[in-house]
Amino acid sequence: MTTAAIPSSARKSFGSDNHAGVHPSVLAAITEANSGDAVAYGADPWTARATADLKRLSGASGEVYLVLNGSGANVLGLGLLLGRHEAVICAESAHINTDECGSAERILGTKLLTVPAPGGKLTPELIARRLAGRGDEHFAQPAVVSVTQSTEFGTCYSLAELGKIHDFCTASGLRVYMDGARLANAAAHLGCSLAEMAEHADVLSFGGTKNGAMGVEAIIVMREQDTAATPYLRKQHMQLVSKMRYLAAQISALVDDDLWLRNAGHANAMARRLADGLAGVPGVEVVYPVESDAVFARLDKRHIAALQRDWMFHVWDEDSGVVRWMTAFDTPVAAVDEFLADIAATAKTG
Amino acid sequence: MTTAAIPSSARKSFGSDNHAGVHPSVLAAITEANSGDAVAYGADPWTARATADLKRLSGASGEVYLVLNGSGANVLGLGLLLGRHEAVICAESAHINTDECGSAERILGTKLLTVPAPGGKLTPELIARRLAGRGDEHFAQPAVVSVTQSTEFGTCYSLAELGKIHDFCTASGLRVYMDGARLANAAAHLGCSLAEMAEHADVLSFGGTKNGAMGVEAIIVMREQDTAATPYLRKQHMQLVSKMRYLAAQISALVDDDLWLRNAGHANAMARRLADGLAGVPGVEVVYPVESDAVFARLDKRHIAALQRDWMFHVWDEDSGVVRWMTAFDTPVAAVDEFLADIAATAKTG
Amino acid sequence: MTTAAIPSSARKSFGSDNHAGVHPSVLAAITEANSGDAVAYGADPWTARATADLKRLSGASGEVYLVLNGSGANVLGLGLLLGRHEAVICAESAHINTDECGSAERILGTKLLTVPAPGGKLTPELIARRLAGRGDEHFAQPAVVSVTQSTEFGTCYSLAELGKIHDFCTASGLRVYMDGARLANAAAHLGCSLAEMAEHADVLSFGGTKNGAMGVEAIIVMREQDTAATPYLRKQHMQLVSKMRYLAAQISALVDDDLWLRNAGHANAMARRLADGLAGVPGVEVVYPVESDAVFARLDKRHIAALQRDWMFHVWDEDSGVVRWMTAFDTPVAAVDEFLADIAATAKTG
Amino acid sequence: MTTAAIPSSARKSFGSDNHAGVHPSVLAAITEANSGDAVAYGADPWTARATADLKRLSGASGEVYLVLNGSGANVLGLGLLLGRHEAVICAESAHINTDECGSAERILGTKLLTVPAPGGKLTPELIARRLAGRGDEHFAQPAVVSVTQSTEFGTCYSLAELGKIHDFCTASGLRVYMDGARLANAAAHLGCSLAEMAEHADVLSFGGTKNGAMGVEAIIVMREQDTAATPYLRKQHMQLVSKMRYLAAQISALVDDDLWLRNAGHANAMARRLADGLAGVPGVEVVYPVESDAVFARLDKRHIAALQRDWMFHVWDEDSGVVRWMTAFDTPVAAVDEFLADIAATAKTG
Repeated sequence: MTTAAIPSSARKSFGSDNHAGVHPSVLAAITEANSGDAVAYGADPWTARATADLKRLSGASGEVYLVLNGSGANVLGLGLLLGRHEAVICAESAHINTDECGSAERILGTKLLTVPAPGGKLTPELIARRLAGRGDEHFAQPAVVSVTQSTEFGTCYSLAELGKIHDFCTASGLRVYMDGARLANAAAHLGCSLAEMAEHADVLSFGGTKNGAMGVEAIIVMREQDTAATPYLRKQHMQLVSKMRYLAAQISALVDDDLWLRNAGHANAMARRLADGLAGVPGVEVVYPVESDAVFARLDKRHIAALQRDWMFHVWDEDSGVVRWMTAFDTPVAAVDEFLADIAATAKTG
Repeated sequence: MTTAAIPSSARKSFGSDNHAGVHPSVLAAITEANSGDAVAYGADPWTARATADLKRLSGASGEVYLVLNGSGANVLGLGLLLGRHEAVICAESAHINTDECGSAERILGTKLLTVPAPGGKLTPELIARRLAGRGDEHFAQPAVVSVTQSTEFGTCYSLAELGKIHDFCTASGLRVYMDGARLANAAAHLGCSLAEMAEHADVLSFGGTKNGAMGVEAIIVMREQDTAATPYLRKQHMQLVSKMRYLAAQISALVDDDLWLRNAGHANAMARRLADGLAGVPGVEVVYPVESDAVFARLDKRHIAALQRDWMFHVWDEDSGVVRWMTAFDTPVAAVDEFLADIAATAKTG
Repeated sequence: MTTAAIPSSARKSFGSDNHAGVHPSVLAAITEANSGDAVAYGADPWTARATADLKRLSGASGEVYLVLNGSGANVLGLGLLLGRHEAVICAESAHINTDECGSAERILGTKLLTVPAPGGKLTPELIARRLAGRGDEHFAQPAVVSVTQSTEFGTCYSLAELGKIHDFCTASGLRVYMDGARLANAAAHLGCSLAEMAEHADVLSFGGTKNGAMGVEAIIVMREQDTAATPYLRKQHMQLVSKMRYLAAQISALVDDDLWLRNAGHANAMARRLADGLAGVPGVEVVYPVESDAVFARLDKRHIAALQRDWMFHVWDEDSGVVRWMTAFDTPVAAVDEFLADIAATAKTG
Repeated sequence: MTTAAIPSSARKSFGSDNHAGVHPSVLAAITEANSGDAVAYGADPWTARATADLKRLSGASGEVYLVLNGSGANVLGLGLLLGRHEAVICAESAHINTDECGSAERILGTKLLTVPAPGGKLTPELIARRLAGRGDEHFAQPAVVSVTQSTEFGTCYSLAELGKIHDFCTASGLRVYMDGARLANAAAHLGCSLAEMAEHADVLSFGGTKNGAMGVEAIIVMREQDTAATPYLRKQHMQLVSKMRYLAAQISALVDDDLWLRNAGHANAMARRLADGLAGVPGVEVVYPVESDAVFARLDKRHIAALQRDWMFHVWDEDSGVVRWMTAFDTPVAAVDEFLADIAATAKTG
């Protein structure tokens, strides 16, 4: 994927959900938390409340740990499920494989056993392909399956699909990590609770940053017996923050009145509106089911270049002319419509 | 050091400079940055401004990188100076050795070659003690010397002392990393510029969090030739944040009108006031020179317990009865005086 | 690949070149070295001679380091070319990717950027596919290309092919590591000197174990400037042996009178004889060019099972019915002919 | 410690027990193993016999794994007891801390929590000093205590001392690793079985190399439940050898007819003879109890230099003039007596 600067015309970015700012309620919560002293590193009432909220929402009997960003969440979440010598099965397109600069290998010393996965979604059959060498000391030993919900292609696992993967993993002695950087978008799409997804994972991340927070993710450890090492690993991984209340306040703002779902729901609706509007546009093909806040579309490369003069978005694959258009909690309906109009107008040109 | 909860009486904490909240100007800058979209991961004007500011202040010809917390800064800063097989010389009392859960060993795979250092300060002589095994493949090979400015005991290296260490290191083929989690306090104490300290390091951190920020540190790489790996290491170390503008805004708020120096100067003055006030109190002995925002004092263990009923602070060494009292940018004069009165009253009891 | 026990009938194994024992000359050299004391860790005359021999043969201006096994050689060789954050490009079929239990990831923290490579051989075009993300901090940064000579499929890069890869890498700022666990077989096949292959690598391994040694490999660092870290990395990687003379004696025995080439030449000739003999056998298809000591063949799965009752060899791919037949320095002509007869007889059965 | 070359006069080295060659019985066993093919990586009858022998001798209910050298044994042995985030308590003088180039930190990412230990021996009291930070996420969390038997100073833990450490560790939730590079010397000194020492450890190494082998160590895992990861970690740590029979044959040669005890007993007796002979020599002070194959002595630095003209040995501490004199399985009585005579003669000079 290639990066472009936001054009000076400064229209709403379709580049990423993290181009958006902070939701006003989140900022208000941060401001409100700025009152007096608080013990550092999480021994404060804000953190107690935020982690209790996520424990309740996820149905975890383990614990919740706030961390600083998505890579931090993924590496910590995987690390606490992995023995020192063990490997991870994931989709070739998984963020941990393609977008984190080799952080999992570098920090955990683990091997990622990748599988080409259509639409970014693993299945028991795909997972099974990487199990052949188990028990042979010459082969990396898979211990954890990492699924991304929603996926890097904007698709979602259904609850049934998650259940099948979890059942297969349990039967195969594998643990499940769920990269939930956009878990809210999946919940909004599936119309399900956090707990209904979380029960199919051993450890999951809950992303705030792409959903209107300033910068916070949570690691949810579903079972008590998996929590023992987490505080130390979080510290070693440089994910323990001193003024934790400001992370916690963000989580609480998202949880209160279901802001997390409303934010994600709006972003999803805007992606849906964009995809629907493309239906009649000749030469523009939506290439994955639109099930969260991303629309992947294939179009003529000259049209891509033309659109990028006024709009910020990423080309996903230069060769095939696939672009990624992302919405956010604050994408205005008007911006979608204006973008659609520009796409349509551009598509008409030769 | 043992931790205690903030007593319900909720007086100003002397527990840590990170018990304080965020300076209003910093919060205002964050709020102001929350306007429209910005490209993620630092390609935004806020980051450009903040890093340019720190480059100018430090006199660096390399680059400035914003990171999330102190451990992140230290591990990244050391990592970019260390070859894969190399070791670090530091004081036994260095934060990287005592307070980061073995993060340097775990993330960098490096060995810390520690030296007992009075008042937390290294000297060329102390450093030289760990150079004996150089060139012998059985011994860990020191490549970097890590100094903390101001130190974990609240003392400061003078510019002359830093210069001697740097000269010695240069002559010995060693690089200098400066852990500047409280660099502002040292600048305020020494009455010097950031550049006057930075010139004695190859890489240094500049701490915002303990100085009124919400959570931001900067890694300053003094020379261009040391910058090549830093972006990738920052990402691998999970220290790259997507909505970078909110880190950058904090730095800019601290730099503007020398807020960083004023915040540190106030905290230092409060520590000085506390130490001065202790002069006449029997049975309370200040054990290190008070040169930043910390006062280390030895007192009767029963008196410690009595004071902890109303005041939050840490016992540094249970055995010897040494406590650490820390001030912050927002410590009121009245709180110091009230605390002093309580200490004096307690000291009078049998 | 699935492992089978050596059948009790104890015919010559076609399972691996490391099923063979030690060449008598190697054992004699070990015995001869067992005379009196020698300083440990390589400061002995045997090591001086062996490393000088390999330096001469390879044309290296750097240094030669003896290590204990193939994985040790590969991890050390890659490690001294890789910056802390950098990644390796290799064929999907590379031993470092498929057969070393994730050692490169675990010990070096590096990511292997794999490419499907027909016959196990990389090309500049295949390498170029993994260079797209260079300079983007989100992507693992390739710095080293690892080629295996001869490959895991028994094929060899021609000198011209190696030259093209090396030129491409040099032009692209990439270093070349050559996994030479079976480098002798390649030299024998190509009829070239060690130096003619070595000049196309920055660092290479020279395998003794599969070529009649008891257990020794050498790391050859072609340029002096790449040697500085090697002694320390070898020690950290647990590849430094105290009684080094016994490793050195093995190398010298292989170098003397070109035993390394004669051993490899014989093994190659036996593989060639086996492949030639298969030409007329119906239902047996040789699937890769036979250019070293391995014959990969596809045959009926029932025939595989039948042959494994009397002969030791590995099934390479259960699904497609591909087996790997390997010869060694000590494979008798008669064993090849007997094996061929059995294969032909089995192939005739229904 | 500083290294010196073996003087050309080529008298018996007192430099190290690994300056000695290979015991003739060990070499004979290697030669005998060189017969026909054997499946690689340990699935051969020699390995089955050697590991069964050590299991029986040590009373282990777990498994025995052969590895290549002492650092390999230590890193593997520690690694299989350590959680990803955990630390090791050891004596400051421990080989893993002083002589392995930081391999434990580099390969395991663990922190060594060192304690100054007189004579190299830990006690429950010394161990307890490093337990203060347990449960606090800022501190490295000790999980394993590493003892060396016999120690780097040639002293031995008595069985009672080992028992006390083991009891303390069990009560404290710590595991015990025993670095047994010279375990044979301890057994010979204590007149005890391998099992009587092994029962006080969770995992131990059994050193062959310093006791007349060519190069082999064993990792003995006392309990079955600790074995699961070992094969994979051994492979990842580059300690799995293909032609394993030649390692196994060495172990069997040492075990047969108690050669291991006889070799160690002889080396110990020679050290004893040397120490006893020093009793009447003025200006030479033996500084540690002589309980294995090492004599540490303090003498005039000019005398050290004079002796080193004819004899090979290491200066342990330049400042205090302490040298280390080591014997081996093959040290002749006459060499000891000749050395003693030279020492006495030198000591008489001014």
